[in-house]
Amino acid sequence: MSRSRVIRGGAGDWTGIEPRRYRHGEDGLARFRDVTRHTLLGVGQASSEAGLGFELRYFEVAPGGYSSLERHEHGHAVVIVKGRGAVRLGEATEPVSALDVVYVAPHDVHRFSADAGEALGFLCVVDRVRDRPVVVDEDGPAGSASPGATEPRDRGAP
Amino acid sequence: MSRSRVIRGGAGDWTGIEPRRYRHGEDGLARFRDVTRHTLLGVGQASSEAGLGFELRYFEVAPGGYSSLERHEHGHAVVIVKGRGAVRLGEATEPVSALDVVYVAPHDVHRFSADAGEALGFLCVVDRVRDRPVVVDEDGPAGSASPGATEPRDRGAP
Repeated sequence: MSRSRVIRGGAGDWTGIEPRRYRHGEDGLARFRDVTRHTLLGVGQASSEAGLGFELRYFEVAPGGYSSLERHEHGHAVVIVKGRGAVRLGEATEPVSALDVVYVAPHDVHRFSADAGEALGFLCVVDRVRDRPVVVDEDGPAGSASPGATEPRDRGAP
Repeated sequence: MSRSRVIRGGAGDWTGIEPRRYRHGEDGLARFRDVTRHTLLGVGQASSEAGLGFELRYFEVAPGGYSSLERHEHGHAVVIVKGRGAVRLGEATEPVSALDVVYVAPHDVHRFSADAGEALGFLCVVDRVRDRPVVVDEDGPAGSASPGATEPRDRGAP
Protein backbone atom coordinates (compact mmCIF):
# COMPACT_ATOMS: atom_id res chain seq x y z
CA MET A 1 0.00 0.00 0.00
CA SER A 2 1.31 3.36 -0.97
CA ARG A 3 1.72 5.88 1.78
CA SER A 4 3.24 8.55 -0.40
CA ARG A 5 1.33 11.79 -0.11
CA VAL A 6 1.19 15.50 -0.67
CA ILE A 7 0.73 17.73 2.36
CA ARG A 8 -0.83 20.88 0.95
CA GLY A 9 -0.54 24.33 2.30
CA GLY A 10 1.91 27.10 2.92
CA ALA A 11 4.32 28.26 5.55
CA GLY A 12 2.65 27.53 8.85
CA ASP A 13 -0.59 26.34 7.31
CA TRP A 14 -0.28 22.73 6.18
CA THR A 15 -3.28 20.43 6.05
CA GLY A 16 -3.30 18.05 9.00
CA ILE A 17 -0.17 19.46 10.62
CA GLU A 18 -0.91 20.77 14.08
CA PRO A 19 1.56 23.41 15.18
CA ARG A 20 3.07 23.35 18.61
CA ARG A 21 3.34 26.83 19.97
CA TYR A 22 5.84 28.07 22.50
CA ARG A 23 5.15 31.38 24.09
CA HIS A 24 7.16 33.70 26.22
CA GLY A 25 6.67 32.55 29.76
CA GLU A 26 6.33 28.82 29.18
CA ASP A 27 9.98 28.63 30.01
CA GLY A 28 11.02 30.17 33.30
CA LEU A 29 14.30 31.37 31.88
CA ALA A 30 12.65 32.92 28.79
CA ARG A 31 15.18 31.16 26.66
CA PHE A 32 12.97 31.39 23.61
CA ARG A 33 10.07 33.58 22.61
CA ASP A 34 7.14 33.28 20.22
CA VAL A 35 8.24 30.19 18.34
CA THR A 36 5.90 27.74 16.61
CA ARG A 37 6.97 24.31 15.44
CA HIS A 38 5.35 22.18 12.72
CA THR A 39 6.71 18.66 12.40
CA LEU A 40 6.17 17.83 8.73
CA LEU A 41 7.83 14.46 8.14
CA GLY A 42 9.76 11.80 10.03
CA VAL A 43 8.16 12.19 13.42
CA GLY A 44 10.21 9.41 14.91
CA GLN A 45 7.49 6.78 14.65
CA ALA A 46 8.75 3.95 12.50
CA SER A 47 5.25 3.48 11.15
CA SER A 48 4.75 7.00 9.89
CA GLU A 49 7.36 7.77 7.28
CA ALA A 50 9.59 4.86 6.44
CA GLY A 51 12.83 5.40 4.60
CA LEU A 52 13.69 8.71 6.22
CA GLY A 53 16.54 8.83 8.72
CA PHE A 54 15.77 12.47 9.43
CA GLU A 55 12.97 14.81 10.47
CA LEU A 56 11.65 17.73 8.48
CA ARG A 57 10.28 20.51 10.64
CA TYR A 58 9.11 24.07 10.06
CA PHE A 59 9.64 26.76 12.66
CA GLU A 60 8.07 30.16 12.62
CA VAL A 61 9.31 32.92 14.87
CA ALA A 62 6.88 35.80 15.38
CA PRO A 63 8.18 39.37 14.96
CA GLY A 64 10.46 40.14 17.91
CA GLY A 65 10.75 36.49 18.87
CA TYR A 66 13.77 34.20 18.93
CA SER A 67 14.72 30.57 19.37
CA SER A 68 16.83 29.20 22.20
CA LEU A 69 20.51 30.01 22.20
CA GLU A 70 21.82 26.47 22.14
CA ARG A 71 24.34 23.99 20.89
CA HIS A 72 24.54 20.25 20.26
CA GLU A 73 26.46 17.51 18.52
CA HIS A 74 24.08 17.11 15.60
CA GLY A 75 24.02 19.54 12.71
CA HIS A 76 21.15 21.55 11.26
CA ALA A 77 20.25 22.10 7.64
CA VAL A 78 18.00 25.15 7.46
CA VAL A 79 16.27 26.86 4.55
CA ILE A 80 14.52 30.18 5.13
CA VAL A 81 11.14 30.15 3.41
CA LYS A 82 9.33 33.15 4.89
CA GLY A 83 10.28 36.66 5.90
CA ARG A 84 13.57 37.98 7.16
CA GLY A 85 15.58 37.87 10.35
CA ALA A 86 18.98 36.91 11.65
CA VAL A 87 20.93 33.86 12.67
CA ARG A 88 23.65 33.78 15.27
CA LEU A 89 26.34 31.24 14.41
CA GLY A 90 29.04 31.08 17.04
CA GLU A 91 30.15 34.66 17.67
CA ALA A 92 28.77 36.02 14.40
CA THR A 93 25.25 37.17 13.59
CA GLU A 94 24.12 37.35 9.99
CA PRO A 95 20.93 38.56 8.32
CA VAL A 96 18.89 35.93 6.50
CA SER A 97 15.99 36.06 4.08
CA ALA A 98 13.95 33.74 1.90
CA LEU A 99 15.78 30.78 0.37
CA ASP A 100 19.05 31.41 2.15
CA VAL A 101 20.46 28.08 3.33
CA VAL A 102 22.03 27.84 6.80
CA TYR A 103 24.33 25.06 7.95
CA VAL A 104 24.79 24.84 11.71
CA ALA A 105 27.89 22.77 12.42
CA PRO A 106 28.18 20.48 15.47
CA HIS A 107 28.73 22.32 18.77
CA ASP A 108 28.27 25.80 17.31
CA VAL A 109 26.08 28.04 19.44
CA HIS A 110 23.14 29.29 17.38
CA ARG A 111 19.89 31.26 17.57
CA PHE A 112 17.32 32.37 15.03
CA SER A 113 15.74 35.78 15.59
CA ALA A 114 12.86 37.57 13.89
CA ASP A 115 14.52 40.93 14.43
CA ALA A 116 13.47 42.62 11.20
CA GLY A 117 9.89 43.52 12.07
CA GLU A 118 8.36 40.48 10.40
CA ALA A 119 7.93 36.78 11.04
CA LEU A 120 10.79 34.46 10.19
CA GLY A 121 9.85 31.01 8.91
CA PHE A 122 12.30 28.25 8.11
CA LEU A 123 12.54 24.57 7.33
CA CYS A 124 14.97 22.69 9.56
CA VAL A 125 16.20 19.14 8.90
CA VAL A 126 17.88 17.07 11.61
CA ASP A 127 18.88 13.45 11.99
CA ARG A 128 16.10 11.41 13.58
CA VAL A 129 18.55 10.03 16.14
CA ARG A 130 20.38 12.96 17.71
CA ASP A 131 21.64 14.35 20.98
CA ARG A 132 19.70 16.78 23.12
CA PRO A 133 20.42 20.50 22.75
CA VAL A 134 22.19 22.29 25.55
CA VAL A 135 20.80 25.74 26.21
CA VAL A 136 23.49 28.36 26.61
CA ASP A 137 23.25 31.01 29.31
CA GLU A 138 24.19 34.34 27.77
CA ASP A 139 24.76 35.87 31.16
CA GLY A 140 27.30 33.22 32.07
CA PRO A 141 30.83 32.79 30.78
CA ALA A 142 30.97 32.94 26.98
CA GLY A 143 29.85 29.70 25.46
CA SER A 144 29.04 28.05 28.77
CA ALA A 145 26.01 25.89 29.21
CA SER A 146 23.34 26.79 31.69
CA PRO A 147 23.58 24.08 34.36
CA GLY A 148 19.83 23.88 34.73
CA ALA A 149 19.23 23.58 31.04
CA THR A 150 21.00 20.43 30.03
CA GLU A 151 17.68 18.72 29.54
CA PRO A 152 15.40 21.26 27.96
CA ARG A 153 11.70 20.59 27.92
CA ASP A 154 11.77 20.10 24.20
CA ARG A 155 14.56 18.66 22.17
CA GLY A 156 13.12 19.83 18.90
CA ALA A 157 13.99 23.52 19.09
CA PRO A 158 16.21 24.78 16.30
CA MET B 1 36.86 26.35 14.22
CA SER B 2 33.31 27.06 13.23
CA ARG B 3 32.21 25.80 9.90
CA SER B 4 28.66 27.00 10.26
CA ARG B 5 27.68 29.22 7.38
CA VAL B 6 24.95 30.93 5.42
CA ILE B 7 24.66 30.10 1.73
CA ARG B 8 22.96 33.12 0.23
CA GLY B 9 20.76 33.18 -2.78
CA GLY B 10 17.49 32.03 -4.14
CA ALA B 11 16.03 29.05 -5.91
CA GLY B 12 18.67 27.92 -8.36
CA ASP B 13 21.05 30.78 -7.60
CA TRP B 14 23.02 30.08 -4.44
CA THR B 15 26.47 31.50 -3.89
CA GLY B 16 29.15 28.89 -4.48
CA ILE B 17 26.73 26.13 -5.48
CA GLU B 18 27.42 24.94 -8.99
CA PRO B 19 24.38 23.38 -10.60
CA ARG B 20 24.63 20.15 -12.50
CA ARG B 21 22.45 20.25 -15.54
CA TYR B 22 20.83 17.32 -17.25
CA ARG B 23 19.50 17.90 -20.68
CA HIS B 24 17.31 15.91 -22.95
CA GLY B 25 19.61 13.66 -24.92
CA GLU B 26 22.24 13.04 -22.24
CA ASP B 27 20.37 9.88 -21.50
CA GLY B 28 19.77 7.58 -24.44
CA LEU B 29 16.40 6.54 -23.08
CA ALA B 30 15.27 10.13 -22.44
CA ARG B 31 14.26 9.11 -18.97
CA PHE B 32 14.44 12.68 -17.73
CA ARG B 33 14.37 16.08 -19.39
CA ASP B 34 15.60 19.55 -18.49
CA VAL B 35 16.47 18.93 -14.86
CA THR B 36 19.09 20.86 -12.87
CA ARG B 37 20.45 19.69 -9.54
CA HIS B 38 22.06 21.83 -6.83
CA THR B 39 23.57 19.91 -3.95
CA LEU B 40 23.29 22.30 -1.02
CA LEU B 41 24.44 20.38 2.06
CA GLY B 42 25.75 16.95 3.01
CA VAL B 43 27.57 16.11 -0.18
CA GLY B 44 28.77 12.80 1.16
CA GLN B 45 32.23 14.00 2.07
CA ALA B 46 32.72 13.52 5.77
CA SER B 47 34.79 16.68 5.90
CA SER B 48 32.19 18.98 4.43
CA GLU B 49 29.16 19.03 6.69
CA ALA B 50 29.53 17.01 9.83
CA GLY B 51 26.52 16.08 11.90
CA LEU B 52 24.17 15.53 8.95
CA GLY B 53 23.13 12.00 8.05
CA PHE B 54 21.29 13.31 5.02
CA GLU B 55 21.74 15.41 1.90
CA LEU B 56 19.84 18.58 1.04
CA ARG B 57 19.47 19.12 -2.69
CA TYR B 58 17.49 21.48 -4.89
CA PHE B 59 16.12 20.37 -8.24
CA GLU B 60 14.70 22.63 -10.86
CA VAL B 61 12.72 21.26 -13.76
CA ALA B 62 12.38 23.62 -16.74
CA PRO B 63 8.93 24.14 -18.26
CA GLY B 64 7.94 20.96 -20.05
CA GLY B 65 10.66 18.93 -18.33
CA TYR B 66 10.38 16.00 -15.96
CA SER B 67 12.48 13.84 -13.67
CA SER B 68 13.06 10.13 -14.12
CA LEU B 69 10.18 7.81 -13.41
CA GLU B 70 11.83 5.74 -10.72
CA ARG B 71 11.58 3.92 -7.44
CA HIS B 72 13.91 2.94 -4.62
CA GLU B 73 14.05 1.76 -1.04
CA HIS B 74 14.86 5.15 0.51
CA GLY B 75 12.21 7.80 1.01
CA HIS B 76 12.11 11.40 -0.17
CA ALA B 77 11.08 14.49 1.75
CA VAL B 78 10.29 17.20 -0.78
CA VAL B 79 9.20 20.82 -0.37
CA ILE B 80 8.16 22.78 -3.45
CA VAL B 81 9.72 26.24 -3.33
CA LYS B 82 9.24 27.58 -6.85
CA GLY B 83 6.51 27.44 -9.46
CA ARG B 84 3.94 24.77 -10.08
CA GLY B 85 3.80 21.33 -11.60
CA ALA B 86 2.78 17.80 -10.80
CA VAL B 87 4.05 14.77 -8.96
CA ARG B 88 3.25 11.20 -9.85
CA LEU B 89 3.06 8.99 -6.76
CA GLY B 90 2.36 5.38 -7.61
CA GLU B 91 -0.65 5.40 -9.93
CA ALA B 92 -1.83 8.87 -8.94
CA THR B 93 -0.70 12.24 -10.27
CA GLU B 94 -1.28 15.35 -8.18
CA PRO B 95 -0.71 19.03 -8.83
CA VAL B 96 1.81 20.75 -6.56
CA SER B 97 2.74 24.36 -5.89
CA ALA B 98 4.94 26.39 -3.59
CA LEU B 99 5.35 25.07 -0.05
CA ASP B 100 3.46 21.87 -0.61
CA VAL B 101 5.31 19.02 1.11
CA VAL B 102 5.65 15.67 -0.66
CA TYR B 103 6.54 12.41 1.02
CA VAL B 104 7.65 9.64 -1.34
CA ALA B 105 7.42 6.31 0.48
CA PRO B 106 9.84 3.44 -0.15
CA HIS B 107 9.32 1.62 -3.45
CA ASP B 108 6.66 4.00 -4.74
CA VAL B 109 7.17 4.96 -8.37
CA HIS B 110 7.43 8.74 -8.69
CA ARG B 111 8.18 11.55 -11.12
CA PHE B 112 8.14 15.33 -10.88
CA SER B 113 6.93 17.24 -13.94
CA ALA B 114 6.91 20.93 -14.81
CA ASP B 115 3.68 20.53 -16.74
CA ALA B 116 2.07 23.86 -15.88
CA GLY B 117 3.98 26.12 -18.24
CA GLU B 118 6.50 27.24 -15.65
CA ALA B 119 9.61 25.92 -13.94
CA LEU B 120 9.16 23.66 -10.92
CA GLY B 121 11.76 23.99 -8.17
CA PHE B 122 11.89 21.85 -5.06
CA LEU B 123 14.08 20.94 -2.13
CA CYS B 124 14.63 17.19 -1.73
CA VAL B 125 16.13 15.56 1.36
CA VAL B 126 17.45 11.99 1.30
CA ASP B 127 19.51 9.85 3.62
CA ARG B 128 23.20 10.13 2.86
CA VAL B 129 23.47 6.33 2.73
CA ARG B 130 20.81 5.04 0.37
CA ASP B 131 20.12 2.58 -2.40
CA ARG B 132 20.31 3.42 -6.08
CA PRO B 133 17.12 4.36 -7.89
CA VAL B 134 15.68 1.94 -10.39
CA VAL B 135 14.33 3.66 -13.49
CA VAL B 136 10.92 2.38 -14.48
CA ASP B 137 10.09 1.73 -18.13
CA GLU B 138 6.64 3.13 -18.80
CA ASP B 139 6.31 1.08 -21.94
CA GLY B 140 6.90 -2.13 -20.05
CA PRO B 141 4.54 -3.95 -17.71
CA ALA B 142 3.12 -1.63 -15.03
CA GLY B 143 5.62 -0.97 -12.32
CA SER B 144 8.35 -3.05 -13.89
CA ALA B 145 11.93 -1.91 -13.90
CA SER B 146 13.74 -1.29 -17.14
CA PRO B 147 16.38 -4.04 -17.25
CA GLY B 148 18.97 -1.72 -18.66
CA ALA B 149 18.36 0.95 -16.09
CA THR B 150 19.15 -0.69 -12.78
CA GLU B 151 22.32 1.37 -12.49
CA PRO B 152 21.45 4.83 -13.70
CA ARG B 153 24.26 7.22 -14.46
CA ASP B 154 23.34 9.36 -11.54
CA ARG B 155 21.88 8.21 -8.26
CA GLY B 156 20.86 11.69 -7.17
CA ALA B 157 17.82 12.20 -9.36
CA PRO B 158 14.61 12.83 -7.42
